[in-house]
Amino acid sequence: MVAEGEPHVLQKSTDYQKLIKEFGVTHLSKIIHLFKEPHYLIRRGIFFAHRDLDKILEMHREGKKFAIVSGRGPSHKIHLGHIFIFQFIKWFQDEYNAEVFIPLSDDEKYVYRKIASLEFAKYFAYDNALDIAALGFKPEKTHFFISTEYTPVYKYAVLSARHLTFNTIKAVFGFTQEINIGAIFYPATQASHILLPTLMYDLPVLVPIGIDQDPYIRVSRDVADKLNIFKPAAIHSKFIPGLDGNPMSASKPETSIFLNEDENIVKKKIWNALTGGRGTLKEQRELGGEPDKCVVFDWFRMFFVKNDSELAKIRDECKSGARLCGQCKKELIQYVKDFLKMHKERRKETLPKLQSFFEHPIDENVVSKIEAETYE
Amino acid sequence: MVAEGEPHVLQKSTDYQKLIKEFGVTHLSKIIHLFKEPHYLIRRGIFFAHRDLDKILEMHREGKKFAIVSGRGPSHKIHLGHIFIFQFIKWFQDEYNAEVFIPLSDDEKYVYRKIASLEFAKYFAYDNALDIAALGFKPEKTHFFISTEYTPVYKYAVLSARHLTFNTIKAVFGFTQEINIGAIFYPATQASHILLPTLMYDLPVLVPIGIDQDPYIRVSRDVADKLNIFKPAAIHSKFIPGLDGNPMSASKPETSIFLNEDENIVKKKIWNALTGGRGTLKEQRELGGEPDKCVVFDWFRMFFVKNDSELAKIRDECKSGARLCGQCKKELIQYVKDFLKMHKERRKETLPKLQSFFEHPIDENVVSKIEAETYE
Repeated sequence: MVAEGEPHVLQKSTDYQKLIKEFGVTHLSKIIHLFKEPHYLIRRGIFFAHRDLDKILEMHREGKKFAIVSGRGPSHKIHLGHIFIFQFIKWFQDEYNAEVFIPLSDDEKYVYRKIASLEFAKYFAYDNALDIAALGFKPEKTHFFISTEYTPVYKYAVLSARHLTFNTIKAVFGFTQEINIGAIFYPATQASHILLPTLMYDLPVLVPIGIDQDPYIRVSRDVADKLNIFKPAAIHSKFIPGLDGNPMSASKPETSIFLNEDENIVKKKIWNALTGGRGTLKEQRELGGEPDKCVVFDWFRMFFVKNDSELAKIRDECKSGARLCGQCKKELIQYVKDFLKMHKERRKETLPKLQSFFEHPIDENVVSKIEAETYE
Repeated sequence: MVAEGEPHVLQKSTDYQKLIKEFGVTHLSKIIHLFKEPHYLIRRGIFFAHRDLDKILEMHREGKKFAIVSGRGPSHKIHLGHIFIFQFIKWFQDEYNAEVFIPLSDDEKYVYRKIASLEFAKYFAYDNALDIAALGFKPEKTHFFISTEYTPVYKYAVLSARHLTFNTIKAVFGFTQEINIGAIFYPATQASHILLPTLMYDLPVLVPIGIDQDPYIRVSRDVADKLNIFKPAAIHSKFIPGLDGNPMSASKPETSIFLNEDENIVKKKIWNALTGGRGTLKEQRELGGEPDKCVVFDWFRMFFVKNDSELAKIRDECKSGARLCGQCKKELIQYVKDFLKMHKERRKETLPKLQSFFEHPIDENVVSKIEAETYE
């Protein structure tokens, strides 16, 4: 059963009800009353399932602070899909006073051979952190750190690793014998990232995560169980639709818009996006479009049109045939252009404060390179 | 062929010539001319083989500095066997101006379940470091660090790990599938310890190591090869004989004397030591003792009697039947007592300077506990 307004583009390839059952997670609708006012991404079913989030919200109501952990693998520039997740995280900081921890996993990208050197990863780590910080996070409640630059990461990874056998990790991650031992160890580092706020500051942790990543959360929950600490809660999202209808991915540039994207590329990518439009103008006028099969409409829902009645209006206009794909695409291009322009300014304003977001000294050599690019 | 004065106790169970061949290392006699004046442990064949030490000595002659790396697994108090190795290392600092790096592998002891918690390991790390530093190392040329407390360790471990497959590590270390992923990763951390002076300070590295540990050095040499840096050299020792004739081991307290050992225990342990004495006093007077089968004599050779003619005299007296085991044991007890007494004083003098030996801030809580014990 698909609720009105759920993104059908995603629905096509993924049976989320089945995943809820298979993973043993709980639908968010069961605890929706615990939110003061649910975020629009919860309301619209993009975040749709959870583990133990009710515990976090109940502790919060009793005055206990909590942390939200969301890592970033620094091998590419940030794209709009990342921004949407981090805006959601910022909402928890603004509305629930959550401490936000953002581990930058240069080690992950290096051992899985997604990047040539730790130095490259470091560049993207600071660059990505700047993009995220620029969304308006509060420096005093935001904690960025690069895996190989922040001492507690390895310490807590060692602590976790003793509780994770090769067999367990192999079952979850599906290794071959030819895999390098850094890749085998990385799940312990990921557990360290997730459990760090609990181990270091006694804060219960919430992790927003794609539903497909749930097995990794379970690894951390198992470790927490062994260490006798709070098991990290999770809030699960659906796949975020890329412009071509496939899940958005930084390694497939055509699926998304990067924050430093050239304006002409933005136009071109959106102009080529998968829509719910009909074969001909005549058909579209007569039958109406299909917004629930349209990536452009999904992007309105997920990123840009936060007002529900405005979104409903677009939907109705499309379905009635009054609104054509060209209009939607032009509007989306304008939204993206405005966002990128504003973001560029916010990056400039945030850069001088970058150190205040980090748990370890930032690398001045790398940051001066980013400065040169940002102020050019 | 066993050279005059080689420790026969060891020889009994180990064919060192075979190991030289099997491991493909080189006998030290081939490069003995490169030493200005060989250390007595080299002269007496206790350090007996090497890899690439000639390169290190030649670089040194050309004015290039080098580093010596010798780790310590902090799960017990230090015993005399450790001291003998670190005195040898200090000789390289005194005679060759070597930079000395001493990683304290709390992670190793924890993931291999040799210690209950990282906190326990931390206590032994600082306690062991104090014992070692008290031998008279120069703070400005000595670099202690605890694995989980010093950021570069994990970074270089990640760098190394990408070049080490599970299969390689399994072949060297012999893991089962039930092993935890921390134990699988540890060889990368060990490579990090060994390669750190080269990666961080461009210093070629020499590692003194028991011959049985050579496979681990080869792992680090393979990584160095992949990273295109100097492959660490090694100097190999024979097994150090414990008081019962078995290799000395901290986990078998009867084989050694700990630096905090009670005087009565010292007497008892040495009085029970394996000697080359005969069944009866009459036999001993008639046939003479067998110093080359005697642990007490081995300890004279290795630790306490550094003058060759004095050692030869003891040997001759024993073989002639003029010297009885009781006399040797009494002398050894006196040597040990004197050493422990002197060492206790040097610990007290060194403790206020402990921070100057460390690459990271020392933990004041742990050190104040050690202070209380040291000055009691």
